[in-house]
Amino acid sequence: MLPESTATSRERSNGDDPGALMGACPLPLTEYQEIVLAHGSGGKLSQQLIQQVLLPQFRNEFLDVQHDGAVFSEAGTRFAFSTDSFVVSPIFFPGGDIGKLAVHGTVNDLAMCGARPLYLSAGFILEEGLPMRDFWAVVLSMREAAAASGVALVTGDTKVVDRGKADKIFINTSGIDVIPAGVNIHPGRAQPGDKVIVSGEIAVHGIAIMSVREGLEFETEIASDTAALNGLVHTVLAAATDIHVLRDPTRGGITSALSEIAQRARVGIYLEEANIPLGEEVKGACEILGLDPLYVANEGKLLAIVSADDLAPVLAAMRAHPLGEKAMVIGSVTDDHPGLVCMKTRIGGIRIVDMLSGEQLPRIC
Amino acid sequence: MLPESTATSRERSNGDDPGALMGACPLPLTEYQEIVLAHGSGGKLSQQLIQQVLLPQFRNEFLDVQHDGAVFSEAGTRFAFSTDSFVVSPIFFPGGDIGKLAVHGTVNDLAMCGARPLYLSAGFILEEGLPMRDFWAVVLSMREAAAASGVALVTGDTKVVDRGKADKIFINTSGIDVIPAGVNIHPGRAQPGDKVIVSGEIAVHGIAIMSVREGLEFETEIASDTAALNGLVHTVLAAATDIHVLRDPTRGGITSALSEIAQRARVGIYLEEANIPLGEEVKGACEILGLDPLYVANEGKLLAIVSADDLAPVLAAMRAHPLGEKAMVIGSVTDDHPGLVCMKTRIGGIRIVDMLSGEQLPRIC
Repeated sequence: MLPESTATSRERSNGDDPGALMGACPLPLTEYQEIVLAHGSGGKLSQQLIQQVLLPQFRNEFLDVQHDGAVFSEAGTRFAFSTDSFVVSPIFFPGGDIGKLAVHGTVNDLAMCGARPLYLSAGFILEEGLPMRDFWAVVLSMREAAAASGVALVTGDTKVVDRGKADKIFINTSGIDVIPAGVNIHPGRAQPGDKVIVSGEIAVHGIAIMSVREGLEFETEIASDTAALNGLVHTVLAAATDIHVLRDPTRGGITSALSEIAQRARVGIYLEEANIPLGEEVKGACEILGLDPLYVANEGKLLAIVSADDLAPVLAAMRAHPLGEKAMVIGSVTDDHPGLVCMKTRIGGIRIVDMLSGEQLPRIC
Repeated sequence: MLPESTATSRERSNGDDPGALMGACPLPLTEYQEIVLAHGSGGKLSQQLIQQVLLPQFRNEFLDVQHDGAVFSEAGTRFAFSTDSFVVSPIFFPGGDIGKLAVHGTVNDLAMCGARPLYLSAGFILEEGLPMRDFWAVVLSMREAAAASGVALVTGDTKVVDRGKADKIFINTSGIDVIPAGVNIHPGRAQPGDKVIVSGEIAVHGIAIMSVREGLEFETEIASDTAALNGLVHTVLAAATDIHVLRDPTRGGITSALSEIAQRARVGIYLEEANIPLGEEVKGACEILGLDPLYVANEGKLLAIVSADDLAPVLAAMRAHPLGEKAMVIGSVTDDHPGLVCMKTRIGGIRIVDMLSGEQLPRIC
């Protein structure tokens, strides 16, 4: 045992760390000397990686907002710019595929800045041996999704890596949109008294993917909710006087998204579990799989944080839109316990719902 | 033998191709039923994949230019938008690493539109188990490269895939730049009488990578030429009255880039082999490895196609810039044999230099 434990302690001491030459890495190497799956979870470790490793290196006025996209002004116009990579497995699943997800994902990130979508790029990383018909099916799906969202795919790139060095196909989409004058939506604007709306039933995408992976069968197939939300956002913006925050709760689910907002705006968020819309089959699947739906990814839902005055018109507008029929008010913003999300459970208790720690569902998007 | 050959012919007939349901794939599936490495080469198969599979699906005024970036106008200003994914192996190599390459690559694609760099996004796909210190080194390198190029990294995304499903780290960078008024650079503008300039010695990046992979040792280490070319482009633009074409000859080397330009502008290009700058060690390495330097990737060189009047001032300006000291006039644009690149060889013959077919150097960038 001794030689082994000596090696381990030497390894952990970082005494001979070549990285020391260029400044020490701010993540404690003793805890995470390697990237783990949870670094991509959208939860605590993702946040740590971004806030401790990435943000300090590239600190600028755009990144600091920690929005779904960067907002910049040029020629008197405000633009939103966003990027997202997609590594979902399997690449085809009930309700969608990686191509559709890639288009919707970036369109939605931009829509969460209140922007109207303009241009999208697509960067493909293909694994040698990918069946050409699969690639073709993904391309057709992207075309359809782009057309339906009203966005033009204007530039692209294709790389191929040797067999076994990627998994079929990874897609990056980046996008640019124009933000209309008067719209000022970002996570820092949540304030006490605001209400939290979710546009429909949660946890559908994550459970659709997990059902395929685990071979679960239900009476009716659970299909991903992947959808472009820019139409719904347009409707909401038209109904409201001043939307404070929009966020699509993808990886890490609604609680990770709300935790980020609570931290960013230094407010508390109070949820009512009984009001959170959750389908019976998704609920059942979560129980079977041991997953908490609050942490499961959505790909066609949004959270809106609005003033009490905007609540009624926004909720009505959402419910009149096909993607918001089941919209519900699920909570409110408070000045208690800033930075935390608390939830009144169905049985009446109150608990803190923290960010996702660890990784429930790797490669969900 | 019989059963096997029957299976093969059935497989090739595509009679039971599910893809047929959604429209037949325009690439002959009988030849390439699967993605092969050459689809990522930057040569003939890459072009086929882009022109036959991707472009027809997303046909629009931006993509049709087949430029390094898409050019669009908004609020009276022209913007360039470009994307590139990086999958180079190894991720650290003499003269650079995947992070530096990712920043330079997109800065250069935008610079080839004559744009001044503004904003960059970074999308990381990390393999579980990547040493944190390697990720850290890549991030620091990106910071340095972004600062040196004068571009701000404003938005990002991080995904993690399970061990064995990617290769350490893949990076996508996308970027947005503003094109100054009066600048109109694109491949379609090459015209008979124009001269072709290369900014320095070719094939350096590809040979630097291959030397590491093959364990070749030379008297002095061959280091990648990776560099941000926007400074050099700025100098060139200031010296010229009207630059016609700029192109950074990365994957597929200078001949694949020139072939694309010849095809796009429907002109011939005539090269003088004796004038093409090629370092002695790179030349030697190409001979050892059996590679044609005309097809080997560059990451810090540009091709400029300019009118005869602009030739002298542009060449002088380039040679006065550290990245263009060894610039040479290597050929001219003709109205003979439109669409083809011909070369007068050192021994006096004339041969057609076609696009790269197959893949010389996979995962070079």
